[in-house]
Amino acid sequence: MPPISGRTRLFAVLGDPVAQVKAPALVNPLFAASGVDAVLVPVHAPAGRLDEVVRGLKATANLDGLLVTVPHKLAMCAHADELSPVAALLGSTNALRREPDGRWYGDNFDGTGFVRGLAAQGHDPAGRRVALAGAGGAGLAIAAALLAAGVARLTVSDPDRGRLDALLARLGTDRPGRVGAAPGPPPDTGLAVNATPLGLDPADPLPFDPALLPPDALVADIIMTPAETPLLRAAAALGRPTHPGVHMLTEQLPLYREFFRLPG
Amino acid sequence: MPPISGRTRLFAVLGDPVAQVKAPALVNPLFAASGVDAVLVPVHAPAGRLDEVVRGLKATANLDGLLVTVPHKLAMCAHADELSPVAALLGSTNALRREPDGRWYGDNFDGTGFVRGLAAQGHDPAGRRVALAGAGGAGLAIAAALLAAGVARLTVSDPDRGRLDALLARLGTDRPGRVGAAPGPPPDTGLAVNATPLGLDPADPLPFDPALLPPDALVADIIMTPAETPLLRAAAALGRPTHPGVHMLTEQLPLYREFFRLPG
Repeated sequence: MPPISGRTRLFAVLGDPVAQVKAPALVNPLFAASGVDAVLVPVHAPAGRLDEVVRGLKATANLDGLLVTVPHKLAMCAHADELSPVAALLGSTNALRREPDGRWYGDNFDGTGFVRGLAAQGHDPAGRRVALAGAGGAGLAIAAALLAAGVARLTVSDPDRGRLDALLARLGTDRPGRVGAAPGPPPDTGLAVNATPLGLDPADPLPFDPALLPPDALVADIIMTPAETPLLRAAAALGRPTHPGVHMLTEQLPLYREFFRLPG
Repeated sequence: MPPISGRTRLFAVLGDPVAQVKAPALVNPLFAASGVDAVLVPVHAPAGRLDEVVRGLKATANLDGLLVTVPHKLAMCAHADELSPVAALLGSTNALRREPDGRWYGDNFDGTGFVRGLAAQGHDPAGRRVALAGAGGAGLAIAAALLAAGVARLTVSDPDRGRLDALLARLGTDRPGRVGAAPGPPPDTGLAVNATPLGLDPADPLPFDPALLPPDALVADIIMTPAETPLLRAAAALGRPTHPGVHMLTEQLPLYREFFRLPG
């Protein structure tokens, strides 16, 4: 990457832990390709000290924006002066920028990134019957984006019934019949998505059994490390098409470019 | 420079302004040469918000050290849990590290860097008669290091008499006759040093007239931008040997390497 000077603008990606983040490896080449003298650095903000870290970053005059990962996406909403409609709906922000007037504006590109990632691989979700495992922050963002993209039906599973009900309450009120709970993917599923953490640890059980899906059902995972999760490996072994987690992040790059007003 | 990942450790150089700092261009190659996955970034901490910025940096778990430039070297002493003897004498710190137990230790390498820079260019100051212009923070650091290096005599000039007296009080009590005030370089000066800001602006007057020095007197400047200050240009035009400001910084690199415990 290009050398850093005293004029280089700063961006930070906040997480706890932060060692796993992929954003610097993707966004710094984007800065270079855009001719922008800026650098994205990982900032390990321990959960109990997030407020101190963010106050310091906001007071840093050459810092222009923040990306946010687990577990800070919800808490960071309180540090935004204004939220996009999507971020407000989700109660979660993964990108914040300093506006020309000094206010902080937060958005959330996780769900849009996931849907764009599908489309970039030739998997338009419009009209499909989709089963989603996981009603946490990522699941909620993906569910909202899939509904906005026009899926025919969305069923969501999560062992935490309270969390599942909360997701349905946020999404379902104006979509009777299109979104609902299910213990797992129904047999007519066309796209099954894992948005749980199951698969981060090789000893995890599968989030659902791909053998119960139709032969042409697409199996998608949002876990990026490992690139081939046990779920995707099992699905591939059964001949099912698969979609790895990295596309959700790479397809956020054009959105970051626009959000942070990078040229080109 | 090498790519930044989620595992990259952070260092920051604090200043207000910060656009002029050279440390990232010098220290980042040092990290790379040492095989250390770390990055030094410029942090513009406005004077009134330094405390907020530093609290945030200290709460950042993957940040290991700080470098400090104008105007924060004095204020940063209050953010160190312990100061080196030199930093305590000067009341000024330009480098702080997080100790294994979490405490912050501050040191000051400005003066040592200047003296090492002279030596590296073949100009051992020991035994010389030295005239120093400027009794601010940099002047004080350089004065202390020159005395420690064994100069025969040190005279200091500064239009601010209170500041000059304060410098002499800090340095002079156990060195009667070796250090004193003077309106400018005495005619038998062997080394004349500018530690004032005069020369940053092309319209500035010279800090002293090099024509009044002996033909073989070395004329040194600590200003790094421009590399050839009006003082150095005037001295060179008179045939005097000159010593530019960059050496003071480059000769701090081995000190930073040791201070931040970099391998090699």
